[in-house]
Formats: sequence, C-alpha cells, structure tokens
Amino acid sequence: MPPPKGASSAKFDWEDPLSLDNLLTEDERAIRDSAHAFCQEQLVPRVLEAQRTEAFNNDLLPSMGALGFLGPTIEGYGCAGVSSVAYGLIAREVERVDSGYRSTFSVQSSLVMHPINEYGTQAQKDKYLPRLAKGEIIGCFGLTEPNHGSDPASMETTAEEVDGGFVLNGAKTWISSAPVADLFVIWAICKWDGKVRGFLLEKGTKGLSTTTIKNKLALRCSLTGSIFMDNVRAGHDALLPGVSGLKGPFGCLNNARYGISWGTMGALEDCVHRAREYALARRQFGRPLASFQLVQKKLVDAQTEVTLGLLASLQVGRLKDEGKAAPAMISLVKRNNCGKALEHARKVLDILGGNACSDEYHVGRHVANLQVVNTYEGTHDIHALILGKEITGIAAFAN
Amino acid sequence: MPPPKGASSAKFDWEDPLSLDNLLTEDERAIRDSAHAFCQEQLVPRVLEAQRTEAFNNDLLPSMGALGFLGPTIEGYGCAGVSSVAYGLIAREVERVDSGYRSTFSVQSSLVMHPINEYGTQAQKDKYLPRLAKGEIIGCFGLTEPNHGSDPASMETTAEEVDGGFVLNGAKTWISSAPVADLFVIWAICKWDGKVRGFLLEKGTKGLSTTTIKNKLALRCSLTGSIFMDNVRAGHDALLPGVSGLKGPFGCLNNARYGISWGTMGALEDCVHRAREYALARRQFGRPLASFQLVQKKLVDAQTEVTLGLLASLQVGRLKDEGKAAPAMISLVKRNNCGKALEHARKVLDILGGNACSDEYHVGRHVANLQVVNTYEGTHDIHALILGKEITGIAAFAN
Amino acid sequence: MPPPKGASSAKFDWEDPLSLDNLLTEDERAIRDSAHAFCQEQLVPRVLEAQRTEAFNNDLLPSMGALGFLGPTIEGYGCAGVSSVAYGLIAREVERVDSGYRSTFSVQSSLVMHPINEYGTQAQKDKYLPRLAKGEIIGCFGLTEPNHGSDPASMETTAEEVDGGFVLNGAKTWISSAPVADLFVIWAICKWDGKVRGFLLEKGTKGLSTTTIKNKLALRCSLTGSIFMDNVRAGHDALLPGVSGLKGPFGCLNNARYGISWGTMGALEDCVHRAREYALARRQFGRPLASFQLVQKKLVDAQTEVTLGLLASLQVGRLKDEGKAAPAMISLVKRNNCGKALEHARKVLDILGGNACSDEYHVGRHVANLQVVNTYEGTHDIHALILGKEITGIAAFAN
Amino acid sequence: MPPPKGASSAKFDWEDPLSLDNLLTEDERAIRDSAHAFCQEQLVPRVLEAQRTEAFNNDLLPSMGALGFLGPTIEGYGCAGVSSVAYGLIAREVERVDSGYRSTFSVQSSLVMHPINEYGTQAQKDKYLPRLAKGEIIGCFGLTEPNHGSDPASMETTAEEVDGGFVLNGAKTWISSAPVADLFVIWAICKWDGKVRGFLLEKGTKGLSTTTIKNKLALRCSLTGSIFMDNVRAGHDALLPGVSGLKGPFGCLNNARYGISWGTMGALEDCVHRAREYALARRQFGRPLASFQLVQKKLVDAQTEVTLGLLASLQVGRLKDEGKAAPAMISLVKRNNCGKALEHARKVLDILGGNACSDEYHVGRHVANLQVVNTYEGTHDIHALILGKEITGIAAFAN
Repeated sequence: MPPPKGASSAKFDWEDPLSLDNLLTEDERAIRDSAHAFCQEQLVPRVLEAQRTEAFNNDLLPSMGALGFLGPTIEGYGCAGVSSVAYGLIAREVERVDSGYRSTFSVQSSLVMHPINEYGTQAQKDKYLPRLAKGEIIGCFGLTEPNHGSDPASMETTAEEVDGGFVLNGAKTWISSAPVADLFVIWAICKWDGKVRGFLLEKGTKGLSTTTIKNKLALRCSLTGSIFMDNVRAGHDALLPGVSGLKGPFGCLNNARYGISWGTMGALEDCVHRAREYALARRQFGRPLASFQLVQKKLVDAQTEVTLGLLASLQVGRLKDEGKAAPAMISLVKRNNCGKALEHARKVLDILGGNACSDEYHVGRHVANLQVVNTYEGTHDIHALILGKEITGIAAFAN
Repeated sequence: MPPPKGASSAKFDWEDPLSLDNLLTEDERAIRDSAHAFCQEQLVPRVLEAQRTEAFNNDLLPSMGALGFLGPTIEGYGCAGVSSVAYGLIAREVERVDSGYRSTFSVQSSLVMHPINEYGTQAQKDKYLPRLAKGEIIGCFGLTEPNHGSDPASMETTAEEVDGGFVLNGAKTWISSAPVADLFVIWAICKWDGKVRGFLLEKGTKGLSTTTIKNKLALRCSLTGSIFMDNVRAGHDALLPGVSGLKGPFGCLNNARYGISWGTMGALEDCVHRAREYALARRQFGRPLASFQLVQKKLVDAQTEVTLGLLASLQVGRLKDEGKAAPAMISLVKRNNCGKALEHARKVLDILGGNACSDEYHVGRHVANLQVVNTYEGTHDIHALILGKEITGIAAFAN
Repeated sequence: MPPPKGASSAKFDWEDPLSLDNLLTEDERAIRDSAHAFCQEQLVPRVLEAQRTEAFNNDLLPSMGALGFLGPTIEGYGCAGVSSVAYGLIAREVERVDSGYRSTFSVQSSLVMHPINEYGTQAQKDKYLPRLAKGEIIGCFGLTEPNHGSDPASMETTAEEVDGGFVLNGAKTWISSAPVADLFVIWAICKWDGKVRGFLLEKGTKGLSTTTIKNKLALRCSLTGSIFMDNVRAGHDALLPGVSGLKGPFGCLNNARYGISWGTMGALEDCVHRAREYALARRQFGRPLASFQLVQKKLVDAQTEVTLGLLASLQVGRLKDEGKAAPAMISLVKRNNCGKALEHARKVLDILGGNACSDEYHVGRHVANLQVVNTYEGTHDIHALILGKEITGIAAFAN
Repeated sequence: MPPPKGASSAKFDWEDPLSLDNLLTEDERAIRDSAHAFCQEQLVPRVLEAQRTEAFNNDLLPSMGALGFLGPTIEGYGCAGVSSVAYGLIAREVERVDSGYRSTFSVQSSLVMHPINEYGTQAQKDKYLPRLAKGEIIGCFGLTEPNHGSDPASMETTAEEVDGGFVLNGAKTWISSAPVADLFVIWAICKWDGKVRGFLLEKGTKGLSTTTIKNKLALRCSLTGSIFMDNVRAGHDALLPGVSGLKGPFGCLNNARYGISWGTMGALEDCVHRAREYALARRQFGRPLASFQLVQKKLVDAQTEVTLGLLASLQVGRLKDEGKAAPAMISLVKRNNCGKALEHARKVLDILGGNACSDEYHVGRHVANLQVVNTYEGTHDIHALILGKEITGIAAFAN
C-alpha cells in the first residue's frame, strides 16, 4: 500500500536535500560512485602540487580513459555510450576536485571527441576516437582568438583551398590543453565561401606551434596556451565535413557548457563540505562556528543553490537525450550554475577566516577557478543576452 | 528511432525554459489549464477593486469548490484526489493573480481541510469536509499569537478539560479568513498534559469573537483578523484526536508551505510577463526598453529563478506523493521560492519606471504581497535556521 | 593641549556613527532640530490617515512656509537664505516622516521656486516667490510626458508664439501637486526654434486642466496628477526668459535630486529606528530579536549606508554652495542614496515579521515610497548611464 | 563675488567624483602625490615577480623609510608627524599597487611603531623607533594564535615573571613579516594577574623561532609566518608598560584598521582604472566593451563605492586627529571599505573576460588579496557584531 499522500516520515539528507538520487538510474548512480572514488583517491592527493607548480597531470586522461569517462555519451569506438546525465555526474565529481581537471576532461570529451563523432568522416572517427577515448592522445579546441572572445563571428583565422588540401593561417588563444595536444580541432573562416568550418590538425605539422600561458591566477591544474598557424598545410581529410557555420563550434560548446553546469555544482559542493567541517571543528567564543547564525546562513544559501542547480542540469540532461534540449536551455544552466557556484563559493570561503588564504583548505582554489569558469564558454553577461534575446526577441549584444 | 544523443532541433519556449511541461501528466496539464482559465477569467477582472477596498470576494471559495480546487489532494468527501503536483499547479495559477487569493485557497485546503482529513474523526470528516470542499463554509487556522510568531512553542492559548468537553482561552492574530470563518481550527496547550492539540470551533460559539485587521499594506485581497477566545466551551467532539504536539500544526504548515512554493513562482511569472510586455511596448531614446541590456538582464534573472524554483517544487511534490518529502525539503523550497520571487519581482518592477506606482500595472501589488508571503509560515531567516540545523546538527534559533 | 593623535576616549553615537554633527554649523544644527520637531509633532500624527485616504494635507506648505522651510536657499523674497546643507537637512527630516511630504516640499522649493528665482524676470520673482515661500500658493513642475519618462528630449508639448503671447498644447503626467497647483511651470518645445523653454501658467487659464491619479501604491501622502493643455494661451510674461534648452529643467531637477539624496537617508533612518525598537521589544525563543546575529546584521548594514550617504550628500552640498557641484555628482548621490535606502529599508522591514504588513509600523510605507523615489527624477539605471558616460566618455542610453 | 548658490559650471572628475581633493590640505596632497609616484615607479614594476615567487622585497621598508612614510603620524624619532589623513593617503597609494605591500607598511607603522610610541618606555622609543622609521629593522605583531582568530580573549600564550625578567611560551600564526622580523611585539597573558600585556622580543633570542607560510593564495607580496616561543627569556625592559588588557592590542588594531580602510579603496581604484582602460580598448561586436550598459554599470557601482568609502575614511581621520574617533567608527569604515572593495573588485574583474585569469592584468591579484584583507584584523561579520552591539546594546558574538 502506498503511503498516504503528503504523509512523511522521510529523512532529510543535507548532502542531497531534494533527493536527486531518486531521479537517477542505477547505472547512473554506479557511474557517479565510481567517478567519485577515482577522483577522491587519484586526484585529490595531487591537486595541491599541481596548483602550486602548474604542472600537467599526464596520467589524468589515460586513467579517465581506462574507466570509460572520456567521450562517455558516444556509442562505439570504445566509448561508454552512457546517458547525458551520467556524463554530467562525471563532470561534477571531477570538478569537485578541481575545475582545471574538469576542463581537461571537458575539452577531450565535448570539444574534441564530440565534433569528430558528430561532424567527422568515418575515417576520422576510426582514426581518432578510440585513441582519444583511451586518453592515448590529447585533443584541444581552437576557437577563441586574441581579439575575439565573446564574439566568434569576427574570427580572423582563415582556411584557403589549395592543391591537395588547405592552408590555414591565424592564431588562437586561451586554449585548454593546447601545449600538450596531439590533435587540434581548429575553426577557421573558409575563404572560398566565407563560412566557418572545422579542421583536424596534428601536432608536428609544419607551421603549427603553441606556447604555454604560465602564471595563471586560476585553473592552474589544467594547461592553457596559444596556437599559431603560419601557412599550415593540411590534406582534404583534415576537414570536418559534417557542418559549416558557427553552429559547428556552438554545438561543441553546448555540450561542454552542459557539462560545466554539472561540474560547477560539484565544486560548490566541495566548498560547502569543507567549510562545514571547518565550522564544526573550529571554536570561537566558546562555541563552534557552525552554531553561529551568520555561518549557518552561508551554508544554507550555498547548499540550496547546489540543489536547484543540479535539478535543472538533470532536467536539461534528460531533455538532451530526448533530443529536446535547445541551446538556450544550456545557456540557462551554464550561466546560472556558474554564477551561483562562484557567488556562494566566495561566501562560504569567508567561513574559513584567515585560513582562507591557505591552499590547504582548498576552498580558495575553487573560488579562483570558478571565476574563470563563470567567464569561459560564454560569460555570465553573454548568456544573459542570449536568453534576453529569447525572451524579448531583440538582440542586445552590441548594446 | 530516437534522435541521436545531444542532437537537438528543439525549440526554446521562454515561458517554460526547461520544459516543466514535459514532466507533468496529462491530468496535471489539464488541471493547470482549467485553473489558469478560471483565474484569468474570473479573478483578474476583480483584483484591482479588491486591492483598493480590501473587500473579500465571497464567490471565491464556492467557485473554486465547483471546479474541484479545494483540498484537491484529498480522496473522497467530494474532493478531487489529485496529485500534490496538481495542487501546486493550482496554487501557481491562483497566485499568478494575487497572493491574497492564493492565501485564502491555501488556508481552506492545507490548513483546514488537511488537518481534519489527517487528524480528525470520521464524524468530523463527514461533517465538515464536503461543505469545505464546496466552499459552502470557510475555515481558518488559529496558530500564531500576538507575542509568538516564529516560535509557536511558546503558545499561550490553553484548553482545559471540563465536564462535557473543553474550555479554551487565548488570542490568535494575523489569521487569514478569520473574519468570515465558519470553522476555526484552533491550536492550544492542553492543561492536562502540556501538549498542543487542535480543536474545531464553530462561528457563533459563545466567547469566540474575531476582529478584522484593516489598512493592510499587502494581501488586501484576503481577509485577515484576530481571534479571541474568552472561556469558549466546546464538546469532546471538537478535539482533533489524531495528533498531539507541534507536529500537528507543523504538518499543516508543511502542506501550506509546499503550496506557497508553487504559488510565489506564479506571482513572479506574472511580474515577468507584465514587465516584458511593458518593455516591448514602451520606447525611450528611440528604442523599446526591451532592447536595453540592463532591462534584459532583469527579465532573464527573474525567469531563470522561476524555472529553477518550479523544478524544485515539482520534485518535492513527487516525493510528497511517494511519502518521501521531509519537512526540511519544504523549508528549502518555501524559503527559496518566496525569497527569489520577492527579490526578482522587485527588480522587474523597476522596468515599469514611474508607472510602477500605478496599481493598474499589477507588478507593484505582487511586490507588496510577496514581502508578506516571504515572511508568513516561517520567515526567510527561520527557514534558514531550520535548514542550518539539518546541515550542522546545531540549533541556532535562539542565537 | 590637544589629545595625542589617534588616542580616543570618544563615545560612539549609533544614531550618528561618524559624527556628521561635527561637520555642521550651529545654524544648520538649529534648522535641523527645528525641522525635526515640526515633522515629528505636526506630520507624524497625520501620516497614517493620509496614507489610507490619499488626502492632501492642506496645512503642509503653509506651516512649512511659516517656519522658513520653502525655497530655503533663496536670498530675499521672504526666503531663509540658508546653505544647501541646511536645505538637505530639512528634506531629511521631512522624509523621515514620509517621502510624499518630502516630494511636495521638493516640488515647491526646487522645481518651482528655484526656476523662477534662477530663470525668471524680476516681475515674476516679485509676483510669485513671496507667496510660494509662505505656502499661500502651490506650484507644480510639468516636464514628464506620458510617453517620455527617462528621455525628456523627445518631449511633445509645444509652445507657439502668437499675437500677445504663446499658445501651449500637450500633456504631462505623474506630476506631483498638479491637482492642487495654483502655478504650473510647464516645459515645452518652442516651435520657432525647436528649443525647450519654461512657462508659468496659472490655474484657471482656459484650456488648462488636471486630473488626479488615485489608488497609488506609494507616495499616497502627496498628490499626483496629469496636466492637459488644449490651446492654452499665455502672455509674453509667462515665459521664463533666463534659460533655453534642457539645461533649464535639468537645473531644477539637479536641485531636487540633491534634496532627495538627503531625504531618502531620513526615510531609511526612520526604518532603522523603528525596526531596532521593535527588535528590542519583541522576544522570540526567549530572547529579544535584537540579540540575533541575523537581525543585527540587517541593522548594521542599513545604518552604515545611512552614514555613508549622508557624508556624501553633505560634501555635495558644500561643493554646491561653492559653485563646484557638477550635475554628475548629484546623479551619484541621488542614485546611491535612493538605491541604498530602498535596498536596506526592505531588509530591515523583514525584522518586523508578520507585523510588516501593518501600516502602523510605518516601515512598509517607507519601503513602498522609496521604490518610487528610486525611480523618479532619473531612475537608478539612467543615473548609472549618466555616470557611465562620465567614466567612459561613451553614451550608452540607447544601448 | 561668490557664485550663486547651486549654480555650477563645475567639471566632474570621474577619478575623484565628489572632490575629495577639495578636503585635503596642501601638505596632504603633496604627500599623496609623492607616495603615488614612489609606488607607481618603484613598486609596480616589481609586483608581478613578487606575486609569482612570494619573494619579499627587502628594499620596501628602507625606501619607504627614506621618504618618511613609516610611522608617519608619530612626532619625533625621525618620523614625519603628519595627519592621520596623510597616513591614510599613503596606505591608499601603497595598496593601489598591492595589499601585501600595504600590509607590510601597516604592520611596521601601526602594529609595531604605534604601540612602542604609545605604550613604551622612553628607552624603548629611543632604541627602536628611529631604526623602525628608517626601515633598518623590521617589526611584526604577534597577537593571533592558531586556535584564536576572531576571539583574542582566549589567548594561550603566557608570560611568567622570573628572576631578571620574564619567560614567554606560546605560538602565534598568520603573522605578517614574522619570517624577516628583527623585532617582535608579542601579546601574552601575564600569569601573575591574568592580564594581556605586550613584550618586545628581538630576533635571535633563544627559544624564539619562526616558520614561513608558503603557497599562499593571496597577499603573496608580503611575508607571513608563525612564531613559536619555547621558554623565551626576556628582560624587564622587554615589557611595554603603558597598557594592560586587550585594549593594548586593540588600540594597535584600530590604527591598522583605519589604514586598511584607505588602502582597500586604493586597490579598488586600481581595479576600476585597469578595467576601464581594458573596456575602452577591447572591442566586441564591433564596439568597445565600455559602450555596453552592463559594463558601464559595473564601473559606476565600483567608483561610487570608492567615493563613499574615501569620504568616510577621511571623516574618521579628521575625528582621529581631534581625539574623537571611537573604535566602532573604525570598525564601520574597515568593514565597509573592505567589503565593498572586495565585492566590486570582483565585479569589475569580469569585464576582463578570459584575460581575468592572467596576472598581467592585475585585477585578479587584487581580488584575491582583498578577500584576505576583508577577513584579517576583524572579519566582516565580527565587525558587524561589534557595530550591532553598539546599535542594540546586546553582544551577539557567541550567538
């Protein structure tokens, strides 16, 4: 007999206040738990050193690959073929450790494997996807240019058709994984018709070079660099034939942004958990910090946003798998979850008092990371204007 | 064949950004649509006059009753027996018009019919529920006392057992519907064991009187009053036998708060819709207000919170019907949705410029109402501390 | 011997945290005290009734006139000739009671007497200023039009030169004091050269009519109306000859906005004082509300902004009297003080819990008023863009 | 002839919106200009390297000393004897470069030289002040302990009187300049009467040791460390005789906090200036970022708070020199200016988009620093409760 409507002897689980768990499949829960274990056991112990030195973790992608985490929604090619929600749950667990690790994961999965799978030839898929899935090779995504962040339509990189293929010229910057990438997905204006298309370039090609951006204030656990293309020649087989126009890179970004919406919630959860533990252990004026109203409010506000943000991302994930997820939905959850994660991570950081300054408490690192995550792949304001255009029918980007 | 994962030619519906619709049953959609039609056709035309005069709409409950909206989750007694989500959808449509109308609806359904159904005798149910469901009689809920708002444990109203029944003494205030109530659910400390219990008093009983609180700054479409009990005698059949202690009134409040979490989202939606229409029609500096970045941001922020809040309430509703909704979950959505509705209704009000001051634009009325709704049935801060206790294990109410 | 630098046995006065008092002249302190006494004794007892009925207080301007409060910075004509700071102090005391009373005061002083004194002929000054100063006649200021709030440059009201004077046509709306005005300062586009100029029209002139805007959600203690001009004829002596272009009305608005910056701080102070008293008297969970951290924070944040806002207005007042106050300075204090007053009045309102809804606690009335004050005479956003233009050199009004 | 009241052809200077300049003496302006030149020429070129390596700038204090910036309000001993406002202006210029440099300056001036001057013997003053003023020796201030941040009354460090002097035991942490300090002002509980007193310890004393806290997330241009005292013996001449109880260290903190209130405004100003230049230079969608409403609003909000914060600090400085500055006044400006600087530095950081992550744009460094500055020397919440106690008369620290 079902319980009477509204009656409840239900327990409240503060770590999952509205029972997200209840909405996951058994498979999804298993993937989440396995990702959680991997991240806590393999990544947490290395994150401080990476933060301090900006050194790249060469084992990161291979070990993720071994667990089936890379390009996980892709069917075949050694990929796991799981749901979009499962993909989000992985992102959440990785970013619970560090947004930089999640960035590396996102680039490989959403910005490199996804476009090959979606827009590539069978040969391209066969050649690259299995190795990318294993983490044997690393990919990067070259869209942003030095003068064009929020406005990729003004791109300056060009591709020209020549005998036997194409010649690419231009520069890209703030490209995650570029300094260690084996494979470059480069978006360029095709001179023959003025349309944007994607090209697959391999490391070592003449004229293709990268530099590393050092001394970053955030995302220090991921590598970031610039890409320079000086008359880089590529064969006809370098072209991603399945898409032209900005909807190509935007399709990739949608996938990545969707993952970010989950990831940032993981980062905020880690902040809440660490600040809560600190507040329970630390005593001032004869009582634990956790007993102070001003401290409780910070924790409650943050955990509330975690809950709301996860439910929203879950819904987008379900719609995505049904083919019903419009890009503006992803703008909504990317913008909201990044913005809220940043806002509340900053607030709970204050609970740590002077110790906020020490990297050993981790929350400060999340705070610095989340500022970047709130900005990249569409700033908070740009996504506001994307949504504003949907609501009003009027584009206000250049206003 | 299902669409490929992640592919999407989905349309974005700004009025339902994350397809809440997709998560409703057909019945729920039908109930929502019927509630919407009723509210827009029957209530909207009368709301300004009610606001201006504080006059009670005597047709409100009977016409809701005729449509099956009162106590709608109750099985039998002429009630509709629909899901908790359907109940929430009705609350949302009613509060889309006015929080005062929704208050009247909530009191009848959650604070009067619910405790009778949950804690009453068969005779009490048979006697009152059918007439309450039809709106033939009006109920009210006497918990709050002049000196005890957030802290009902300090209640001063008493019930004493005497020959043939009970004698009640005390005063209640800020009681919705009290001035027109036929039936009073009164919570009192029982002198014989110090526990709180509920009593059903009928209008006209000697020693039972009410006054009306006039000149309210908000919720002017609902009636509010005080109740005085001066040696009111009631038979043994007046006692609600099924519960003792504060969990009695708290169970009712949980139901009502759950409905409020839906209702406030309706009020905020109305603000967004009206401000958006204004911003599209109104031109300044040669362009519609809706084309200004600062205006778009206000609309986007508000509509984002609508979406998040509704998804959260939906999840709580589903859990409620499964018997898995803990009270703190309801604190979370009551607090969040009220707080966000108030915050963003205020922001979009500014879009109206000087016309914000005119009641004909409606948004200002919602803003005033939502301040009260954010406060009643547990203030924003009290619910923070309820959740803070869950997160930290430490009660900080008296801190 | 002066105290050693930095040593201090100074007392902290929470009502004047940074000793604004220390920066006032003796005269200014005397004017403030006299204004305070008048407002508390004469206005406070009548404000609730006015709020409830929207009735205009006919004694308001005469009694202010008797005390020398009208047009107080003007020299001669029976005006007090006091400093701009003294003028601000009066505005603060009046708005401590109600923003509507302060609006009536501001219109008379800054929007009617000021332009006559600044731009009028000697005959106009002699004719009108003494009677306006006594409050014998009431003036109003016709600038805003139904379709042009933030953008007066698009004004549609016209003045045409004809034999013996001018003919005016057009409509103005949201005009404070219009329904009871004896004298109308009307701004119109002059057909002969396309420039805006001011005209003085007297009540009873053929073709000049007003209507009253009733059922306002705020500023109910002041009268608001629309003005209609249907071929209104005025003599040549109706023209204010001393100014042409928008700098005419803008000069008036600057004066009024400066006063508003003081006034809103008075309103917020009243909210803080009333909420504090409530919090000290009201007990929940066995302790006064004032002992709760979440309550203290609200009071502290509000009182901090009072202090900062008053210091800023004082500095603008001093610069004004030295002829060094640029209009953007006034935008800064108008915008900041209105915005902060509104934000924090709303926060301290929550301290009142359910009683916030009762007009007898006054704070809710201030909250409703301040929303309008934050909007009129330049919305918060418009002043942001005025300042943004100063900072960046780029006008973004139509963006 | 003075200009007519209220008339104005005044220019608006966006860098000094309300003419703070007008309120400074000529001497103060000269000191500010000289500090500005020194900081921009000597410190700016070194700040990035310091940030990256956490290396201490050994020239910092000597070069400041050469310009008379150390302990500048002290009369005699080679100190400049300038006003408290001049001291604040120096702090503002130093923190315009980096909060870490300002911390080093504050510790030397307010936390070391001030207590010696205020509470020391003539011999102590003669021995230490001239060398501290020249920056020949470096001082540090040992108050905070590992378990006692916001609550120094629970201090565990002790001083015991023994033959020939005292023995000190205990540990201090988060002590600026400790690793390079020649002179340690140590606060300890005196066992003989349970009161807190200050002691001057010299580097090299047996049992006195320090460690450096590395890998800080902020304030990397200043050195921070812990101090350990293991049976450290000191002569009777080590005692600061002029004060006992917490008012000793609190007097020092008041001085330092006052300087911080100026310093943080300098940091925020630097953020505004840099973000503004970026927004003017950077084009997206064919227009400079500075032309976007959402960007202008961020700059305006920030610059408004700079203006308000500086006026408030100026007023406290003037009161300080008149002996009228109560500690709670300093709590108010410390709290407000730190909190606003942090909030708005974060907002303008977003203007930089992806480049926010690069340390070469400086704003991100300020943001990280300001989080610590908002926390040290009394967190934002602690100062709220200090002020809350003043407003309500009720201490809520342990609530």
